[in-house]
Amino acid sequence: MVHDYLALTRELALPVPEQLVAVRRDLHRFAEPGWCEVRTACKVTQVLSALGWTVRLGSDVIDTKARLGVPSQDTLDFFFRKAIETGADPATAEKLRDGLTGVVGILRSQRPGPVVAFRFDMDANSGVESGSAHHAPVRNGFASIHAGIHHNCGHDGHTSLGLALARVLAMKRDELVGEIRLIFQPAEEGLRGARAMVAAGALDGVDYFVGCHLGVQALKLGEIIAGYDNILGSVKLDIEFTGVSAHAAISPHVGRNALMAACVAAQNLMALPRHGAGDTRINVGFISGGESRNAVPATARLSIELRADRTAALEYLKEAADRVISGAAIMHDVRWDARPVGESCAASSDVELAQLVAAAARKIPEVTDVRDRADFKASDDAAEMMRTVQSQGGKAVYFGVGTPLNAVHHNPLFDFDERALGIGLKTLTRVAQALEARQ
Amino acid sequence: MVHDYLALTRELALPVPEQLVAVRRDLHRFAEPGWCEVRTACKVTQVLSALGWTVRLGSDVIDTKARLGVPSQDTLDFFFRKAIETGADPATAEKLRDGLTGVVGILRSQRPGPVVAFRFDMDANSGVESGSAHHAPVRNGFASIHAGIHHNCGHDGHTSLGLALARVLAMKRDELVGEIRLIFQPAEEGLRGARAMVAAGALDGVDYFVGCHLGVQALKLGEIIAGYDNILGSVKLDIEFTGVSAHAAISPHVGRNALMAACVAAQNLMALPRHGAGDTRINVGFISGGESRNAVPATARLSIELRADRTAALEYLKEAADRVISGAAIMHDVRWDARPVGESCAASSDVELAQLVAAAARKIPEVTDVRDRADFKASDDAAEMMRTVQSQGGKAVYFGVGTPLNAVHHNPLFDFDERALGIGLKTLTRVAQALEARQ
Amino acid sequence: MVHDYLALTRELALPVPEQLVAVRRDLHRFAEPGWCEVRTACKVTQVLSALGWTVRLGSDVIDTKARLGVPSQDTLDFFFRKAIETGADPATAEKLRDGLTGVVGILRSQRPGPVVAFRFDMDANSGVESGSAHHAPVRNGFASIHAGIHHNCGHDGHTSLGLALARVLAMKRDELVGEIRLIFQPAEEGLRGARAMVAAGALDGVDYFVGCHLGVQALKLGEIIAGYDNILGSVKLDIEFTGVSAHAAISPHVGRNALMAACVAAQNLMALPRHGAGDTRINVGFISGGESRNAVPATARLSIELRADRTAALEYLKEAADRVISGAAIMHDVRWDARPVGESCAASSDVELAQLVAAAARKIPEVTDVRDRADFKASDDAAEMMRTVQSQGGKAVYFGVGTPLNAVHHNPLFDFDERALGIGLKTLTRVAQALEARQ
Amino acid sequence: MVHDYLALTRELALPVPEQLVAVRRDLHRFAEPGWCEVRTACKVTQVLSALGWTVRLGSDVIDTKARLGVPSQDTLDFFFRKAIETGADPATAEKLRDGLTGVVGILRSQRPGPVVAFRFDMDANSGVESGSAHHAPVRNGFASIHAGIHHNCGHDGHTSLGLALARVLAMKRDELVGEIRLIFQPAEEGLRGARAMVAAGALDGVDYFVGCHLGVQALKLGEIIAGYDNILGSVKLDIEFTGVSAHAAISPHVGRNALMAACVAAQNLMALPRHGAGDTRINVGFISGGESRNAVPATARLSIELRADRTAALEYLKEAADRVISGAAIMHDVRWDARPVGESCAASSDVELAQLVAAAARKIPEVTDVRDRADFKASDDAAEMMRTVQSQGGKAVYFGVGTPLNAVHHNPLFDFDERALGIGLKTLTRVAQALEARQ
Repeated sequence: MVHDYLALTRELALPVPEQLVAVRRDLHRFAEPGWCEVRTACKVTQVLSALGWTVRLGSDVIDTKARLGVPSQDTLDFFFRKAIETGADPATAEKLRDGLTGVVGILRSQRPGPVVAFRFDMDANSGVESGSAHHAPVRNGFASIHAGIHHNCGHDGHTSLGLALARVLAMKRDELVGEIRLIFQPAEEGLRGARAMVAAGALDGVDYFVGCHLGVQALKLGEIIAGYDNILGSVKLDIEFTGVSAHAAISPHVGRNALMAACVAAQNLMALPRHGAGDTRINVGFISGGESRNAVPATARLSIELRADRTAALEYLKEAADRVISGAAIMHDVRWDARPVGESCAASSDVELAQLVAAAARKIPEVTDVRDRADFKASDDAAEMMRTVQSQGGKAVYFGVGTPLNAVHHNPLFDFDERALGIGLKTLTRVAQALEARQ
Repeated sequence: MVHDYLALTRELALPVPEQLVAVRRDLHRFAEPGWCEVRTACKVTQVLSALGWTVRLGSDVIDTKARLGVPSQDTLDFFFRKAIETGADPATAEKLRDGLTGVVGILRSQRPGPVVAFRFDMDANSGVESGSAHHAPVRNGFASIHAGIHHNCGHDGHTSLGLALARVLAMKRDELVGEIRLIFQPAEEGLRGARAMVAAGALDGVDYFVGCHLGVQALKLGEIIAGYDNILGSVKLDIEFTGVSAHAAISPHVGRNALMAACVAAQNLMALPRHGAGDTRINVGFISGGESRNAVPATARLSIELRADRTAALEYLKEAADRVISGAAIMHDVRWDARPVGESCAASSDVELAQLVAAAARKIPEVTDVRDRADFKASDDAAEMMRTVQSQGGKAVYFGVGTPLNAVHHNPLFDFDERALGIGLKTLTRVAQALEARQ
Repeated sequence: MVHDYLALTRELALPVPEQLVAVRRDLHRFAEPGWCEVRTACKVTQVLSALGWTVRLGSDVIDTKARLGVPSQDTLDFFFRKAIETGADPATAEKLRDGLTGVVGILRSQRPGPVVAFRFDMDANSGVESGSAHHAPVRNGFASIHAGIHHNCGHDGHTSLGLALARVLAMKRDELVGEIRLIFQPAEEGLRGARAMVAAGALDGVDYFVGCHLGVQALKLGEIIAGYDNILGSVKLDIEFTGVSAHAAISPHVGRNALMAACVAAQNLMALPRHGAGDTRINVGFISGGESRNAVPATARLSIELRADRTAALEYLKEAADRVISGAAIMHDVRWDARPVGESCAASSDVELAQLVAAAARKIPEVTDVRDRADFKASDDAAEMMRTVQSQGGKAVYFGVGTPLNAVHHNPLFDFDERALGIGLKTLTRVAQALEARQ
Repeated sequence: MVHDYLALTRELALPVPEQLVAVRRDLHRFAEPGWCEVRTACKVTQVLSALGWTVRLGSDVIDTKARLGVPSQDTLDFFFRKAIETGADPATAEKLRDGLTGVVGILRSQRPGPVVAFRFDMDANSGVESGSAHHAPVRNGFASIHAGIHHNCGHDGHTSLGLALARVLAMKRDELVGEIRLIFQPAEEGLRGARAMVAAGALDGVDYFVGCHLGVQALKLGEIIAGYDNILGSVKLDIEFTGVSAHAAISPHVGRNALMAACVAAQNLMALPRHGAGDTRINVGFISGGESRNAVPATARLSIELRADRTAALEYLKEAADRVISGAAIMHDVRWDARPVGESCAASSDVELAQLVAAAARKIPEVTDVRDRADFKASDDAAEMMRTVQSQGGKAVYFGVGTPLNAVHHNPLFDFDERALGIGLKTLTRVAQALEARQ
């Protein structure tokens, strides 16, 4: 069965506002988790190509060694097959398979000018989507076909914005100077993808970096947050303790209790001291351990995350967590392993670019409320790209597009107001023009 | 498809030693977990009836309110269907379904005499059976047909012993005095079944109680332990903590952390003080908790067991555990529930009956080594029956039948030497005769 | 023996800058801890009276029921006797004894105008003063005569500033409008005194409140921080667990282990979750427990403090700490008691008054560096007075006077540059004038 | 001031029963703690010499390197001075000072025979003695002159028994064969002294070892327990954690929290798993930590003891405790030190000797009740000597002399019935004779 999503002519023939909605709904329906966005990235590739963008993809834009949290081969294979079944171009898909799902579109002018990068994330999230008739995707027939995989964070909207921006900028290509890069990133959820694109050079030479998010700290249609500050840096760790089983009544002293090591570690991780000069967060999100009620548990696992609003505080947490985990393991004479499955630094928008975004937004009639800044209060691995650009002398901004939400991010009922897409696109377009003008 | 296990004529036509092996292998192959022993109990019922025993079964011998750890209806239904598919008599099965899988055979003499009860447990255990060709059940074609359910504790042998004893005693029925009861008990694993048979009156009026186990503290063919002491009392609890989820970065203070309550409880349970006058054991065998790496965990579960060699110490542990669990819940402002899923008291054999068993065993040529006593060091809910009989003025013994084991109880490779069945039967027979003689 | 500190004529006859140093050194030498400042408050009383201020003291300005952390009667008696021995006027001392060591000086004009209050704290701290010749108080002969009591936080300087301000304002009394109040507060260390003065009405009717501190976040001579923000709210608790002793080998199960309750509480207090909207701090500063190596400990104590930069977060911590402590007590079946021994809310300076302080400071030649604001990062119960004034519609400011420090506050070698006193006095004087002018 | 305790002629001139009481009361009054028994050991030395025993003392019978828990030099000096003041012979005291307070008396026959050793412990204990008139030592004027040092375990009675036995045996010296050794041991409390005497060779060549205790598991006058079993082995450890202090509000992340390390260690020590084949005990008897409520604690201390009824279980506890302590230190990045301050192995009486004691006791008219054995349930470093003798092929027995107690051992009101001393002496005398007869 081949779906008609590649009826590009049809989608691109729509008026831009209608394209925004149509593409978003298509992506929502065929939601794909991080590193598995084969169909999504195929579509991005083909749209960009059709619009005349130079496209780089797969291993050209993903450094495999810098990836984090790549799922099992079974999962990768499953979504590859599904992508083919739901219309992905097999030749393109082949280049994206096995966790290589990044795409970069490039439009280079003959005239000198700055390199401006826009970043859009493509992955859906784990999570059961609501089946309620009150949930618009259900009502309008675009609920996710994959049970347990769900665009509950708005990345379907982000990617749709990217493709619409690609169309608008392609139409204005004669006015461009310098270079525009559209970065379509996999695996933002869990902070797994940005580093691999940075490591592959996708941000090399970028002067201005622009990212945006729907509905974070901005819940009103027409509201723009010109620049987020304090995107929290974060490390996600999967920790495993391995001990020795023993009969809990006959020979408890022979066991090496992995469950107790995990419990002690969990408690002491939560008790890591506050940092005097930075805001920190710690969570032990999952625990599991043990094999049988009457055996000393030989295995246990923790999934934790550490966050901080500045590098020094995050480094402090990492070192302290490492000590807690190893101390707990020594205490119970068990082996331990801590595997990072996601990581991103902290970052803040440059004031200069935030002012540029604010000025651009104020010119848009539908924008009724421009806030200069807000704390992001959560994490996004766009921060890795921002920090990279800032460290090479460029400027970065991450701005917010207001929208009412049916339910908070990551909720089964999460949904945004699709009219926000139009406002987001206009903001992006004006920001692009303003940055071009700064050359 | 109807299996030929009900070819009773065939099995009962075999010489007794061959019957012992044939029945044991049939039961091993069609292993059924606790409260699901429909096919096993059907077979027991039909054999006893065929041999002329009066049979009581189902709700006549199981008090439903006193059952512990009954599995889900789905599981009960599954094994009921499988029992029918593998040859169980539908009319009998109907009386045993939904967790009523107890059977009692009664042989009553006209002549006055004591009431002597023999108890055999019928359930298989959770656990994956080895698929290795070195495992005799695999090699000889009687490995369990149910993945994850496995006779790894010898109850297949125990039930086979019970049916052979039924045949031998039936043949000698003219010599009998008083009354013989053969109690076939479900759900010994997890200490879930004995109380329900006691509560239904299965032990009422019993003067002498006899139970036996293969291969506990006795690993030599020809070895008999005449009476176990210090069968540990035990309580099995499933504990559940329920808190409130919250975003771990944005509003950690709003959460009510069930995982932390579980970790604190686990640590403090393990730290319950020793008892000055009794041997105690505590195990937290399982833990699980949490929903998502970045959310304050709202749910957590522990599976624990408490054991002690005397009632006062077990009561102490129960009260202390209750305090730990409720304290941990209060500490983290979460709700908690602790459900007993298994329980048995502690018990020891009466010296008088152990001497009788020893004397009986010494007369058997294959018995090479009789030990007067041994600590059981584990739990068995035969203790509930022993204690019941002792408290009504009777005497009880639980003896051991030696056998080499391929691997320890509950191991995927557990297997015993089938020649031990013959020795066990002879011991049981002689013990029955000696008890009859005591009138 | 009568010391000559009451040679008021002599001290008040000195030029003001010399008076500042002389008084400070006298107070440093006769350091008195919180609620025991009998000699200090006597001196304040007599200086104010001599200068023509109306003076209220003792139970007129201290609400005994609102006091926190009052020391034992023995300690109160000891310092009362010492005060008399070192020259305190017995009649005045009688009014101040037993923890009534507050003084308020009032200067009321005939002309209408605002009520302006200045607050100075008088208590020394626990802590051994350095005996090194490198320590100026030792070199110059004004080290504390009381072993273990030491002005290591600059309150000697604060009180000296207050008395010099009294002299300067008294000289200008004809220019005054409205009312000036000089509040000399006991027991700031441990946040124990401010509430008792607020409860006694010392802040009633105040329009403008001014406090200041030497050397907090301002370590340069000539530096003024015009207004501190985020003075942390704090609660200090002494927690006691009482269990039951038992021989640890013979009957451990009979004990009720207070030490374990304290350890569990300590760990779980440190693990109280961060607050999503406020900065929090937790410290378990002291622990002690147990009576004998071979007995189950029947007693244990913790001294803790909770802090937060806003009321909601502090309330959250208090409730959560209460749960942890009671949960730990339930867990180990011990009794518990948590006694507040210090408490203060959080507060920030009003921007309007901070601007006024900044403007005033900029006019002083010795002031080289005016910072508009800084986070206080610690606690001071001046916050209780600020919050009181703010809640009755007034404005409050707490400003900082820069000084190099020999060692940080509370260190045995703590000492400040006495030249800062002159700068502080000029700032206070100009602030008083500016506030008067605002009527 | 010279006390008349050395009026040996007077004490030794008394009838033996009166001597027993007089000596006991003298020792009770001049109670000396472990390693400080200078006056006691002087008295023992002089009595033995006067009776014609060969005496070895001080560094001849104490290996200084094998001593545990020697108190500070100040304490040693204090009790040395007090010993001289209360009549100790200065020349003898000089040999015993500085923790060399052991004495061995030897009586060697010309005739061949076994080497028989009797051991008596001499030290008093820490603990405030009751001042109540209901307390016999108060009523009769022999309460301890040293506040906080108190014979609350009966060692005054043990030493008195030893000196009376010396007199009785000296009188019968012509009947003796082989060799009799009377070992007067310091520092039994805390298990600190026995090893040092064993290491110095005091038990070399001993064929039969005899020890006894008043009032352990035997609370009836006239009761004898012929041999204790399962004297628990024990290790006493003082643990110190050293971290880094920091301001708990300003820079909590800089601290290294020793108090938390101690709490985590305490909790996990209590949670050390039971041993499958031995009875174990763990106690954290003391904790202290922290310097100031508002500083991250830089120091913390624990006093713990581990006990087990067999060597393997004690070794297991020691290794496991070591892991817990080091793990806790690593977890909180603090340094740690664990110092053994007492240690003894586990031991049981040889059945053969217990039977000999029972037979001897049965011949004594005042003995009304002889029990063959009892579990000791506590620790006594006599076990070190028993184990030494047993390991060199000899036999050992530790027997109990029944006495009602006013209050349990180590209680301020502890006191025994002095009539038990006469029964004890008769038992010792008959045991000596019976052992001599075994040659």
